[in-house]
Amino acid sequence: MEKKSYPLSKVYQLIETGPVVLVTTSSKGQANVMALAWHTMMDFEPPVIGMVLGEQSLSFQTLKATGECVINIPTVELARKVVGCGNCSGRTIDKFRKFGLTPVKAAKVKPPLVAECYASLECKVIDARLAAKYNFFILQVLKAWVDPSVKEARTIHHRGKADFMVAGRTITVPSKMK
Amino acid sequence: MEKKSYPLSKVYQLIETGPVVLVTTSSKGQANVMALAWHTMMDFEPPVIGMVLGEQSLSFQTLKATGECVINIPTVELARKVVGCGNCSGRTIDKFRKFGLTPVKAAKVKPPLVAECYASLECKVIDARLAAKYNFFILQVLKAWVDPSVKEARTIHHRGKADFMVAGRTITVPSKMK
Repeated sequence: MEKKSYPLSKVYQLIETGPVVLVTTSSKGQANVMALAWHTMMDFEPPVIGMVLGEQSLSFQTLKATGECVINIPTVELARKVVGCGNCSGRTIDKFRKFGLTPVKAAKVKPPLVAECYASLECKVIDARLAAKYNFFILQVLKAWVDPSVKEARTIHHRGKADFMVAGRTITVPSKMK
Repeated sequence: MEKKSYPLSKVYQLIETGPVVLVTTSSKGQANVMALAWHTMMDFEPPVIGMVLGEQSLSFQTLKATGECVINIPTVELARKVVGCGNCSGRTIDKFRKFGLTPVKAAKVKPPLVAECYASLECKVIDARLAAKYNFFILQVLKAWVDPSVKEARTIHHRGKADFMVAGRTITVPSKMK
């Protein structure tokens, strides 16, 4: 695996742009992966992320039961696999096998990292108060991994239906913001 | 104003990509505007959006007190003004005047739309349970406005500090996703 450990203080820089992510969960040794786009940073350090999962999904049930997941960030080369993961259920399919994704053992949680994604965030649920009403989970990032060779990651960003925006150029605007 | 009324059922297509937004609030006839990047869709229709505001900000206080805001989505031409709005406080500065932003009367809430932004979402707070602990507000979009001449909006997406990714090309990947 080409990913290296990444400082928790910089995790927000991965998530703020709004990329579609692949979320892995694991139950009784069986890993699953889903695609989602509804997430936000909620705090810098330790990094806290809020995330909405469709309540009908197997991943929703598993996250609720186990309290652990890995948020993996894919780039445009993986677009077809990401959409594939979003279009079927782990109840009937081993998505890792179907889409040729490689699970890699995580350091602090049971669900695996996805080797093909340039960044992976190992997370635990810290607040599920809004899970019943809004399908919303609040996660703390315990450990982050990033492939340092990837600069200005060409992440994908859902524009609805079959359309995805690919991350474009980076501009610099003098700022006092974090 | 070039913006037209926009169907609530398509609002998610504006927010899912993760753009930096300009949020307007209004108290006692005085409008204010802040920049933020921590938001997520939470439901399709009516559209529900979750958003984190720094608790030290005037906008946080005003949103908590009034329960109303407008989420305006700027494109790259406005990048310097957006960063400017993020680097000062409405307590001491009229940011509309300082940055040459034009307030436009909203249809359903008191805070104004920002004329220069290609899209504006009039919102009311529907759940502030997590405001105290996470500075997190849940908003329902009451009315949406979009400039129909803007295709593949060149929104800006924070990569941390002074770096902003500009929305790139759109690709199409056959999908059953909404």
